[in-house]
Amino acid sequence: MALVVQKFGGTSVADAERIRAVADHVARSRRQGQQVVVVVSAMGKETDELIHLAGQVSQTRPGREMDMLLTAGERKAMALLCMALHDLGVPADSFTGSQAGIITDTFHERAKILEIKADRLRECLAADKVPVVAGFQGVSTERDVTTLGRGGSDTTAVALAAALNADAMEKYSDVPGVFSADPRLVPGARRLPHVSYDEMLEIAATGSGVIAFRAVEFARNHSVPMHVRSSFTWEPGTWIREEDPTMEQPIISAVTHDTSEAKVTVAGVPDQPGIAARLFRSLADKSVNLDMIVQNVSLHGTTDISFTVPKSDLDIALEVCRSHADEIAADDVLADSQIAKVSLVGAGMKTNPGVGARMFETLADAGINIEMISTSPIRITCVVRAEQVELAVQVLHRAFELEG
Amino acid sequence: MALVVQKFGGTSVADAERIRAVADHVARSRRQGQQVVVVVSAMGKETDELIHLAGQVSQTRPGREMDMLLTAGERKAMALLCMALHDLGVPADSFTGSQAGIITDTFHERAKILEIKADRLRECLAADKVPVVAGFQGVSTERDVTTLGRGGSDTTAVALAAALNADAMEKYSDVPGVFSADPRLVPGARRLPHVSYDEMLEIAATGSGVIAFRAVEFARNHSVPMHVRSSFTWEPGTWIREEDPTMEQPIISAVTHDTSEAKVTVAGVPDQPGIAARLFRSLADKSVNLDMIVQNVSLHGTTDISFTVPKSDLDIALEVCRSHADEIAADDVLADSQIAKVSLVGAGMKTNPGVGARMFETLADAGINIEMISTSPIRITCVVRAEQVELAVQVLHRAFELEG
Repeated sequence: MALVVQKFGGTSVADAERIRAVADHVARSRRQGQQVVVVVSAMGKETDELIHLAGQVSQTRPGREMDMLLTAGERKAMALLCMALHDLGVPADSFTGSQAGIITDTFHERAKILEIKADRLRECLAADKVPVVAGFQGVSTERDVTTLGRGGSDTTAVALAAALNADAMEKYSDVPGVFSADPRLVPGARRLPHVSYDEMLEIAATGSGVIAFRAVEFARNHSVPMHVRSSFTWEPGTWIREEDPTMEQPIISAVTHDTSEAKVTVAGVPDQPGIAARLFRSLADKSVNLDMIVQNVSLHGTTDISFTVPKSDLDIALEVCRSHADEIAADDVLADSQIAKVSLVGAGMKTNPGVGARMFETLADAGINIEMISTSPIRITCVVRAEQVELAVQVLHRAFELEG
Repeated sequence: MALVVQKFGGTSVADAERIRAVADHVARSRRQGQQVVVVVSAMGKETDELIHLAGQVSQTRPGREMDMLLTAGERKAMALLCMALHDLGVPADSFTGSQAGIITDTFHERAKILEIKADRLRECLAADKVPVVAGFQGVSTERDVTTLGRGGSDTTAVALAAALNADAMEKYSDVPGVFSADPRLVPGARRLPHVSYDEMLEIAATGSGVIAFRAVEFARNHSVPMHVRSSFTWEPGTWIREEDPTMEQPIISAVTHDTSEAKVTVAGVPDQPGIAARLFRSLADKSVNLDMIVQNVSLHGTTDISFTVPKSDLDIALEVCRSHADEIAADDVLADSQIAKVSLVGAGMKTNPGVGARMFETLADAGINIEMISTSPIRITCVVRAEQVELAVQVLHRAFELEG
């Protein structure tokens, strides 16, 4: 019998009616002969509301207590879903992260899964019941409650699928799949029936919030096939799995974009070994997440170093750079938050030269200036002005013939 | 150093401001040289809201899942209180019932505490931190989350005080103590500085909701002194502890009343051994909580059996009695929900004859008819018409000179 882990996000369990709809779907999956393990997020915006409440109570937010607070959310969702399943005659038991045997390290609010001791879930399945597991949470090796941080529930679901040797992890949300571009920008954007893990990693890294990067990484490392689909239409969505080497790959799968970053330029840095290293070590020590890093060709013994950071990290990044400006003899430190990234992703790019050239020409023809470029074997990313990113996505989607 | 367990009810932690006020009080207690363990209930009306949510989702409410749902409430309150304590520089860690080592039997929604393995709380205290424990919840011998049912958080606090050998359990709520009568009915009602465990048991059993009967019972059995006081004024309230045999006892401590019960009469029952036993066994099998039971003197070979039950149990009680009417040859089964109980409670009653007579005379003088009577060594209860109970409380409070 096929075993699937079905993961339902906050919008899918936002109210009593939606929870009953999820229960119906789980019951239908069982009638179709599947064994089902369910992973749920907190209902609707509850996690945000709890964070707001914490802000009202306290200036300090100790991680241990934030985790205790936030894990109340999934608890409610999973208990209610079990009740709705019982109503349909489907036996179901809820499990906290701890009860499900999700053992993590001790880093609160961003714990990593170390091990899954899924004995209780296996017993539950063997008794022909549906285990309903709280996403996003675990228990540390010190026996404290932990949360997994961003994308935590997706990661829970993938990790359980790996531990239980499930046939697939199905992610249900209000997003019906992975698209060739954001349908809000490109009305002709096409749902992709399948993408490879590597493509999905690039898509997740360059702008699409459809599934968390770390969950895709976990799925790739453990070869867990994922199916991203809608909990409103219940129609098939996008499969994420190993590349099929017998099939010809499309050159480009998707155009993605991201407006959440800002650019920092450290100008006039002496072109000597170790300068960049000193700067980036200091940024890393402050947990600043660098993304693209570009260092210009040295012309007169000095160079400019530019990088992008999440806008939320911009202030701290500037502080670090300015405090080092004298030490590294930089002329100036400049910030620019009016930028956006546009990327082309496609596994077929590896074997197709000329994709970059066509991308740059297309942008130039549309009057869009490119400020930074970075590449991977299956991705090319350009930084452009924020106000031109919509146009950039549209012209690239057309130029690479991604319409359905 | 004195160790106290401070228990805060829902109104005491209803919002961010109240939670910060509780944190202030805990910090002050520590500055005064006390070690503090805190037990919290869910915020405000949250438990009621969760029950309502369950009703919207499902017709069936499996106990295991109700317990998972409801325990989300204290989790939020305790995490937020810990954050508020951290803000004040008071180190504090929250503990679920499971983490606090509160081991229960497996009866969901009404679990009983079997054992407390308080090692983690002791470690927390030894590290000079404040353990903040979720009231109302535990973990069963089957490793499932359980709740303790009515009065659960009071019971948690008393049980922890016993396990940790604390000097006292302090119960904070919007009720400032135990009164000689309900101040809403009797403006001159007096706060009692102390009552004995036995008096408190009778007061709790006959109408005052100030502290749960089972918590008082637990406190008496383990000799845990309790202090019932206000979390709004923080003034001293009522101490509940062993009777002090060197002190003269007041004859009467309090007049209590209760309008939550109904009366059932099984009329014309043959006065033969075993008839009542058969009826009450069937009622017990249906978990009907009988309170007062009165059997009239037999006049013509038949008798009437009357008893009171919570109004919520009335329908099932009537069903049981009517289904047995033929078998026990009863003439009729009658229900009356327009009754109320009024009680006098006082440890000094034991050694003072004539209290009953004065009670009955006082009620008669006020034109109040008595329908049933039951007594214990330190209590006399009369059933009267519901519309006369306010008057009954007032005339008794005056007759026994209970004003401050």
